[in-house]
Amino acid sequence: MIESAMEQETTIEASGVSGQRGPAEHKRRQQILQAADEHFRLYGYRKTTLADIAKSLNLSTPYIYKFFESKQAIGEAICSHCLGAILSEIEQSAETTKSPVDKLRRVFIGLHTIGWQVKNEHRKLYEMVTASFEEGWESVARFKEGIFKIVRKIVVQGRESGDFERKTPLEETARAIARMTELFYHPTLLEQAGKSQEDEALAVANVAIRSLTA
Amino acid sequence: MIESAMEQETTIEASGVSGQRGPAEHKRRQQILQAADEHFRLYGYRKTTLADIAKSLNLSTPYIYKFFESKQAIGEAICSHCLGAILSEIEQSAETTKSPVDKLRRVFIGLHTIGWQVKNEHRKLYEMVTASFEEGWESVARFKEGIFKIVRKIVVQGRESGDFERKTPLEETARAIARMTELFYHPTLLEQAGKSQEDEALAVANVAIRSLTA
Repeated sequence: MIESAMEQETTIEASGVSGQRGPAEHKRRQQILQAADEHFRLYGYRKTTLADIAKSLNLSTPYIYKFFESKQAIGEAICSHCLGAILSEIEQSAETTKSPVDKLRRVFIGLHTIGWQVKNEHRKLYEMVTASFEEGWESVARFKEGIFKIVRKIVVQGRESGDFERKTPLEETARAIARMTELFYHPTLLEQAGKSQEDEALAVANVAIRSLTA
Repeated sequence: MIESAMEQETTIEASGVSGQRGPAEHKRRQQILQAADEHFRLYGYRKTTLADIAKSLNLSTPYIYKFFESKQAIGEAICSHCLGAILSEIEQSAETTKSPVDKLRRVFIGLHTIGWQVKNEHRKLYEMVTASFEEGWESVARFKEGIFKIVRKIVVQGRESGDFERKTPLEETARAIARMTELFYHPTLLEQAGKSQEDEALAVANVAIRSLTA
């Protein structure tokens, strides 16, 4: 399921991403993003320079700066695209069940599964995502906010259906549970994670669920 | 309170730590550890070489290898000492209250507080601890196991006193809650953490507590 998020069949949407310059709709911008994406996948984000990307398109490095402030700005656009696709996957997976308990479990397990897959099967992409987390890119903040919104929605649904408690402050509770999911998708934690990671994701999801069904 | 854990007034106990060689009780081993500790605090773990440590003691680098397999082995001994001191602080702090709920809250808040302090006031030590986490040193695994044991003990006490539920599997529950504390002491996560970190530690502790008092 994650393949669709990892493959760049679609246009990389760069609007609203920090460090972007010049006209939003521009063939060159797309070409640069596609070339950068290829380079990052082949050689890794850290080893690729703006000059490498420019050279592959027969462009000059200053020309690239017309569209992007820095290499990170290109990384941000690509990361935003991937992380956005992961959010959609998680959201869709949660929507295939009506039970708020199952929805929440799917968020934890889904994030674990996707994280594990990126770590093991898409090493170069994983390397870029690691950089984005460790350097605190805006795309990461947006991703975390997206997870929070998904969790919040599930908690609201569970409260409305009577499955979940209504005593605790909604924002605080949803924020705490969203933070708990981080244990299973943060690339630095994933790098050290062992085989028991899936069981742990399930166990932590159960703690969250029991706290809501108290 | 953390100062005692961060200051090396006592002997650094290296027995049982991986990568140690030669006689456990040896004046030279202690001298090497003290010199290494000073170097790591002044110049950082990554920038210090075994040759620097040897030179400061008028020893040869091969002589150091009689006691330690590598720089990491020296780092492991110092890290073990620090992380062990942190575990003691957390354990003592939990013991000052009888309420299992308060004990658990103190574990989360205590780990957050110590982590925050190391990050802001002991940058070089923090750098070494970051390396130990990112490289998966044995001292880190032992620390996590220590946290698990503290949490497990509190859960057992809470079950015995009737404060906590007894339906869920003890090991799984304690392991999940111990993992949740990681959000507040893992140096890579701490590096990105904002001012709301303490509130989040409290909110996540509350999720754990509500799941147990269900």
